[in-house]
Amino acid sequence: MSKGEIQNRFGLRVRLLRNERGWSQEAFADLCGLHRTYIGSIERGEQNSSLENIHKLAATLGISLAELFSTFTETPASP
Amino acid sequence: MSKGEIQNRFGLRVRLLRNERGWSQEAFADLCGLHRTYIGSIERGEQNSSLENIHKLAATLGISLAELFSTFTETPASP
Repeated sequence: MSKGEIQNRFGLRVRLLRNERGWSQEAFADLCGLHRTYIGSIERGEQNSSLENIHKLAATLGISLAELFSTFTETPASP
Repeated sequence: MSKGEIQNRFGLRVRLLRNERGWSQEAFADLCGLHRTYIGSIERGEQNSSLENIHKLAATLGISLAELFSTFTETPASP
């Protein structure tokens, strides 16, 4: 899984979880304390998000990091 | 869980998994394609690691992101 691929998959995961809550990107960004355009770029796979921001997203979604990454079950190929 | 706290916990998790494999920081860094001092600072909780580098660590450890974060089961407080 390449850099772009992991970012894409992470973005799709965030978008799914946000949509499940019925939140717009703007509402979600406000709750996270992040900018709406930043949330948009995460969801489009354009951001190499930091652990701190990943943690903020999980906190706002009301889930643990274990749950946020629970669908990332394949062992990636070594770099 | 504060920024420093999540970084600390992540660093301890990485150190544990590296030690389980019997690898020095230097050997692990070489396998990851990252610098030894960077691995040291991750393990000390001083790095706000990016998704790409988190993915590299997991790949080198031979585990999925789900497994890397499997111990992070508590739902964090909203930011």
